[in-house]
Amino acid sequence: MRGNVIVGQSGGPTSVINSSLVGVYQNAINRGAGTVYGMLHGIKGLLDGQYVDLSEHIKNDLDIDLLKRTPSSFLGSCRYKLPEICDDKEVYEKIFKILNDLNIEAFFYIGGNDSMDTIKKLSDYAILVNSTIKFMGVPKTIDNDLAITDHTPGYGSAAKYIASVTKEIIRDGLVYDYPTISIIEIMGRNAGWLTAAAALAKGEDCEGVDLIYLPEVAFDIDKFMVKVKELSAKKSSIVIAISEGIKVADGRYVFELADHVEFTDAFGHKQLSGSAKFLANKLGAELGVKTRAIELSTLQRCAAHLTSRVDITEAFQVGGAAVKAAFEGETGKVIVLDRVSDDPYICTTSSHNVHKIANIEKKVPLEWIIDDGTNVSEDLIHYIRPLIQAELSPVMVNGLPRHLRVDLKDSL
Amino acid sequence: MRGNVIVGQSGGPTSVINSSLVGVYQNAINRGAGTVYGMLHGIKGLLDGQYVDLSEHIKNDLDIDLLKRTPSSFLGSCRYKLPEICDDKEVYEKIFKILNDLNIEAFFYIGGNDSMDTIKKLSDYAILVNSTIKFMGVPKTIDNDLAITDHTPGYGSAAKYIASVTKEIIRDGLVYDYPTISIIEIMGRNAGWLTAAAALAKGEDCEGVDLIYLPEVAFDIDKFMVKVKELSAKKSSIVIAISEGIKVADGRYVFELADHVEFTDAFGHKQLSGSAKFLANKLGAELGVKTRAIELSTLQRCAAHLTSRVDITEAFQVGGAAVKAAFEGETGKVIVLDRVSDDPYICTTSSHNVHKIANIEKKVPLEWIIDDGTNVSEDLIHYIRPLIQAELSPVMVNGLPRHLRVDLKDSL
Repeated sequence: MRGNVIVGQSGGPTSVINSSLVGVYQNAINRGAGTVYGMLHGIKGLLDGQYVDLSEHIKNDLDIDLLKRTPSSFLGSCRYKLPEICDDKEVYEKIFKILNDLNIEAFFYIGGNDSMDTIKKLSDYAILVNSTIKFMGVPKTIDNDLAITDHTPGYGSAAKYIASVTKEIIRDGLVYDYPTISIIEIMGRNAGWLTAAAALAKGEDCEGVDLIYLPEVAFDIDKFMVKVKELSAKKSSIVIAISEGIKVADGRYVFELADHVEFTDAFGHKQLSGSAKFLANKLGAELGVKTRAIELSTLQRCAAHLTSRVDITEAFQVGGAAVKAAFEGETGKVIVLDRVSDDPYICTTSSHNVHKIANIEKKVPLEWIIDDGTNVSEDLIHYIRPLIQAELSPVMVNGLPRHLRVDLKDSL
Repeated sequence: MRGNVIVGQSGGPTSVINSSLVGVYQNAINRGAGTVYGMLHGIKGLLDGQYVDLSEHIKNDLDIDLLKRTPSSFLGSCRYKLPEICDDKEVYEKIFKILNDLNIEAFFYIGGNDSMDTIKKLSDYAILVNSTIKFMGVPKTIDNDLAITDHTPGYGSAAKYIASVTKEIIRDGLVYDYPTISIIEIMGRNAGWLTAAAALAKGEDCEGVDLIYLPEVAFDIDKFMVKVKELSAKKSSIVIAISEGIKVADGRYVFELADHVEFTDAFGHKQLSGSAKFLANKLGAELGVKTRAIELSTLQRCAAHLTSRVDITEAFQVGGAAVKAAFEGETGKVIVLDRVSDDPYICTTSSHNVHKIANIEKKVPLEWIIDDGTNVSEDLIHYIRPLIQAELSPVMVNGLPRHLRVDLKDSL
């Protein structure tokens, strides 16, 4: 007879992270697991004894389908890094006591490269103490910056949202009878995968964006101004996509070039936004044209009303594959997506040693960034296109997308 | 035999303004009109001789259905106010010469209260010069600030978008294991209809926003800070909806309270954004919690991927009703929506004297703003709810919403 399993979510939310949760839950149940626990707020919540029996919250098939369409981490999230095992054994002893008390056979963690560090350390510790608990990572991040895997669940839906609204913004900019420049600011601190998705807007019915700037290439503000001036002599409506993380050659973020911008939050952290605003103001002042800055902001990771069916399906699959692998004895692994074929698009899963994935950030290859850092190549578009295909219709109730309600704190 | 007709679009775009264009086009054709012309960039473009034969751009039933789903003004827009007739007859003589040369029987203008001023003046001038050309206004604005009509086409879809993404943003804010305050900035310079739509997020599966501030009530920043402090003692994730146009008692916009914000564009116009950012920074500094400012920005008026079927249908109906009325001899009128019943929701159209509608701004009634200006009443929610019902599925091609491509300039 199988033991129990526990699953947690960590790091930034995505539109499809709960599809992976459902993948773990359903597969664990189907493969004979006892109780499927959910840790609240990831490993940090677990350390505080915060966990629930998921079957009390996912009660029927409708709940399953609503949960797949519910954005943001159903179980809550955390950004918590475990100490090195050699520095602090106590926290590990505490976690393993909780897991053993709950008769946990397998532990699943849905997250990005920081979260995979948790799987690495816990599986390492399990070897040290001869524990038989299996630890498996389930990939998730809109940033698509995870190593080894072809792409990450969460990215396809974010890319689809970005490309769709970019089309709409381009269309909106075309209506005026005077010149306008729109700058769209897209998430991505160090990797430009999300910003690159703006390139997908271009097609038979859309002229596309005019310039794209990713953080992989140093941003040269003088060249930028010249480029936009040239463009503005040729066309009336200009749309530019920039990554929030673009930096000038000396390492400063572009928004830090402003004279008086408040760029730290209450904790003194740099807030990565404002570069579009800064550039829009500068262009407006120097070119004397109407400019606007549009931050796509939080919706990039929570617009579950517009997700990719391919993405939702793959998010579910990596959850299920993690359960299968753990129940077959694997541990210290991450499920990755392997693209078998581009056309037709076919993708399978495999498991990979977590040591090769945790804490590593995969950037956009420089050969996919063209035109002196102002555009992306057809190869990059070709890479992204299959990931945004098809839809999973939201369940609309009384005019609005229906979600599975989270009331987990009440159940503690 | 019928003469020709001409139609234009004016003012800010909406997601459904082209459904009204289709309504005019189809009904004019069905009722035996000759050529249906479209003026480019409204009356301003017409004065420059910019118009097209719409049948060259709307070629088949698929084009019709794509155009209904294409956001932003297909014909381009303008913000142009005709001079008073007594001040400058020349411009009117020029317009009527163009219209007579084109054998125009009826002139349709799709727009908001500023645009209805054009219909008022042109129909007044027609009386002066004994012209038989009919001038009809077709209402359009996401702002919902038009007099007489129960609501305006364009508002329902914007409200549905705002309510939907507010639900998603609330869900996103719930995942953290530390306190967060999100401030959503919503369009609306003087009228709070759009911001009020954030209240619709509340339901069986969503706790809703915590506070709502409309521009109809003076914003008291001290009371605001006290209110949020009280709230933050009770709950971890706080979401606040504000209108971009909220002002303090002395008439300054809230974003003007910032020490060093750049609030004018290249033309010296005040840019109505930044109030959320200002309040988020202030709350972050004083409460020491993580805050974020989210401007819904341009997407409120161009997110055609998420429209209200009720809205699209009504936008079509007002276009058709304008043609019917003009062909039956009416002029100097605007088509308005008359709500016959709330439950079941039934709405019809009628025509109304443009003099009672042009240049008048309808605000949210003060009795619908409650809790000392921090929330809206059930009556207001009851008023909005029918307008966001049902969907018109986007036509998705290769993963993205398909639009009818605009290449009107090439055809001149």
